[in-house]
Amino acid sequence: MIASSGNFNAAPFSDADAKSAAAALQAKRPLVHCLTNEVVQEITADVLLAAGASPAMVVALEEAPTFAGIADAVLVNVGTPYPDRLKAMHAAARRAAEACRPWVLDPVAAGGIPWRDEQIRSLLAEGPAIVRGNASEIMALAGIGSGGKGVDSINSSNEALAAAQRLAREAHTIVCVTGKTDYVTDGERFLSIDGGDPMTCLVVGTGCSLSALAAAAAAAAGCAMTGAAAACWLAKRAAEYAARRAVGPGSFHSAYLDGLYLASRGQWPAA
Amino acid sequence: MIASSGNFNAAPFSDADAKSAAAALQAKRPLVHCLTNEVVQEITADVLLAAGASPAMVVALEEAPTFAGIADAVLVNVGTPYPDRLKAMHAAARRAAEACRPWVLDPVAAGGIPWRDEQIRSLLAEGPAIVRGNASEIMALAGIGSGGKGVDSINSSNEALAAAQRLAREAHTIVCVTGKTDYVTDGERFLSIDGGDPMTCLVVGTGCSLSALAAAAAAAAGCAMTGAAAACWLAKRAAEYAARRAVGPGSFHSAYLDGLYLASRGQWPAA
Amino acid sequence: MIASSGNFNAAPFSDADAKSAAAALQAKRPLVHCLTNEVVQEITADVLLAAGASPAMVVALEEAPTFAGIADAVLVNVGTPYPDRLKAMHAAARRAAEACRPWVLDPVAAGGIPWRDEQIRSLLAEGPAIVRGNASEIMALAGIGSGGKGVDSINSSNEALAAAQRLAREAHTIVCVTGKTDYVTDGERFLSIDGGDPMTCLVVGTGCSLSALAAAAAAAAGCAMTGAAAACWLAKRAAEYAARRAVGPGSFHSAYLDGLYLASRGQWPAA
Repeated sequence: MIASSGNFNAAPFSDADAKSAAAALQAKRPLVHCLTNEVVQEITADVLLAAGASPAMVVALEEAPTFAGIADAVLVNVGTPYPDRLKAMHAAARRAAEACRPWVLDPVAAGGIPWRDEQIRSLLAEGPAIVRGNASEIMALAGIGSGGKGVDSINSSNEALAAAQRLAREAHTIVCVTGKTDYVTDGERFLSIDGGDPMTCLVVGTGCSLSALAAAAAAAAGCAMTGAAAACWLAKRAAEYAARRAVGPGSFHSAYLDGLYLASRGQWPAA
Repeated sequence: MIASSGNFNAAPFSDADAKSAAAALQAKRPLVHCLTNEVVQEITADVLLAAGASPAMVVALEEAPTFAGIADAVLVNVGTPYPDRLKAMHAAARRAAEACRPWVLDPVAAGGIPWRDEQIRSLLAEGPAIVRGNASEIMALAGIGSGGKGVDSINSSNEALAAAQRLAREAHTIVCVTGKTDYVTDGERFLSIDGGDPMTCLVVGTGCSLSALAAAAAAAAGCAMTGAAAACWLAKRAAEYAARRAVGPGSFHSAYLDGLYLASRGQWPAA
Repeated sequence: MIASSGNFNAAPFSDADAKSAAAALQAKRPLVHCLTNEVVQEITADVLLAAGASPAMVVALEEAPTFAGIADAVLVNVGTPYPDRLKAMHAAARRAAEACRPWVLDPVAAGGIPWRDEQIRSLLAEGPAIVRGNASEIMALAGIGSGGKGVDSINSSNEALAAAQRLAREAHTIVCVTGKTDYVTDGERFLSIDGGDPMTCLVVGTGCSLSALAAAAAAAAGCAMTGAAAACWLAKRAAEYAARRAVGPGSFHSAYLDGLYLASRGQWPAA
């Protein structure tokens, strides 16, 4: 079945492909070097651990480039950027690219503040394997639309498909735009991942940690497009697991990590 | 009913006023710019999300003042201050004041270390709409008492009423002193909020995130005094919800966020 | 009963000694000054609070040495070091040593990156009361072995006993090496702590926060060796409590804190 959204045809990412990518993650346990924002470091590490990857946050300019050459994948998330950290991000991204390791750019709040947009464009020029953002961020990066509300999107993901395609083509990258439906594109093909639960948006870091998971899955699968889609699939399944058990965002957070652990091991959804 | 504590008469903040302020929070979903300490960033964002606000942590001097002019409210918490971050805090506080947006000062560990006290006094001079602290912090800021034990109070909140009044008058601000009973004063009137649960003190960040919630509620209500009191009311109800379900501080943390989510939506206490 | 591992005889740390150390922690509520990494600050504070200690993260060079002289114990964890923070760590460690307060060094990822190893050796020269790490970290510090996989150990704790002994003797410190079995040594005697659960490794910060708990327990017990062993015992009991209740790492995290709260108060394991 092909879902159509405007002029774009997106093929649903299959459960079989997702399970195969999840199994690769378990088997390879990729080491993910995370340069992420101050707010979500714990949930990012916990998400990677739950899904079978190994997180490491190495942030000083003195050691980040060395470590990026050792790690299997790198995450750069600009949620709380400042000059010293940005230098380390650039150095790590460059080293990952040189070493042919996938690195993921999460352009938090793109389109909101000119200074930040400059930083994001400058990181984009380092050549990420994947750019993962919400609709407003992807639209702002592609030069379509004017940003969200702080870190939240004011657009739905299917409004961002033209932007995702343009960005993927111009930056020669995989673009992953998440929302009610998640989409992954290389500029030609589109994959879609449905499901999840709206309460996911009431737990800080579920989006940011998805970018880290995409880095891990891309390294394990040896394919950025598959990795990004598999990360979305795991997050959607985890959210559905949590939604059945939670009464609010506190219990949702715990159950989301449990669901990710189970889904990564092929135990959720139950057969 | 008027509760009397020494020479001070405090009127209980009514459930009706609290519910009305919570409804305003849901309706307006204020964007809260948080410059807070390293330890509590996640719980602060989660508390704001649970209650219906939108958190954003923007910390670099290059963008914090711009963002403070976009946000509906600003939080400045000095739990882990250092020179660069303090500059961003000053710039954001000033911009919020210029833009007539409420900003909240959380003077963590006031009275403990002379260098920190200087930083806090200097931020206080920027004119916060609300100062939220525990009894020892408020007493130290008012020049009465000599600080707590690290970040913990060694005084009860009703011992801090004279200090709260003096501080409110001298700094032309709303003072919110939290503890077994929470008090909010503009230097003339006192509101009190009772309830809660002692286990709240075993979860890091419940106090710090209350300051963020006060910023959100003040922006939504258009009144700092009402906002501070509504935030206290929500936190007390959330703690009571959690206390009924928790066996220790881990389950309390999850249930506290659930309780906040329910109380903010008028679903707790059950009618 | 004496457990033998290769040439080393380790005496199990007794439940009676553990309970006595836990009671001292409750009675004295030590103030622990934590200079730790960006990822685990919240769980570190929550672990200390659950066990009855009082955490304070004071990080600026302008105030860290002052505060280290006020606190009952200091934790230095190099998970995310950078030059400014390292200066504050050195100053705090030195002040703690001068004031005869125990300070704990957690050498995260020792053996992985030359720059970091230099920083760790330089902190080790300040004379920690306790060094707490996983097997790969302790082996790397002792000059035996070549580091782990990022922050994870590739060796089991009983492979690190000769390294622990050598490090304890050369650095005149208590060495605590954690893993399936935890070991504590002063270079002569060995204590062992068994139990726990493998899911502990899927929650970020359970190791890092154990180092903070060792600092707290050492201050309360007035003995670094007893404190380190008591912290391990509490963590093992908490993990067992959590393992009975958890379906994945999210519910494990909550239950771990609950278990720590109960074990610290003598309520777990149930009599």
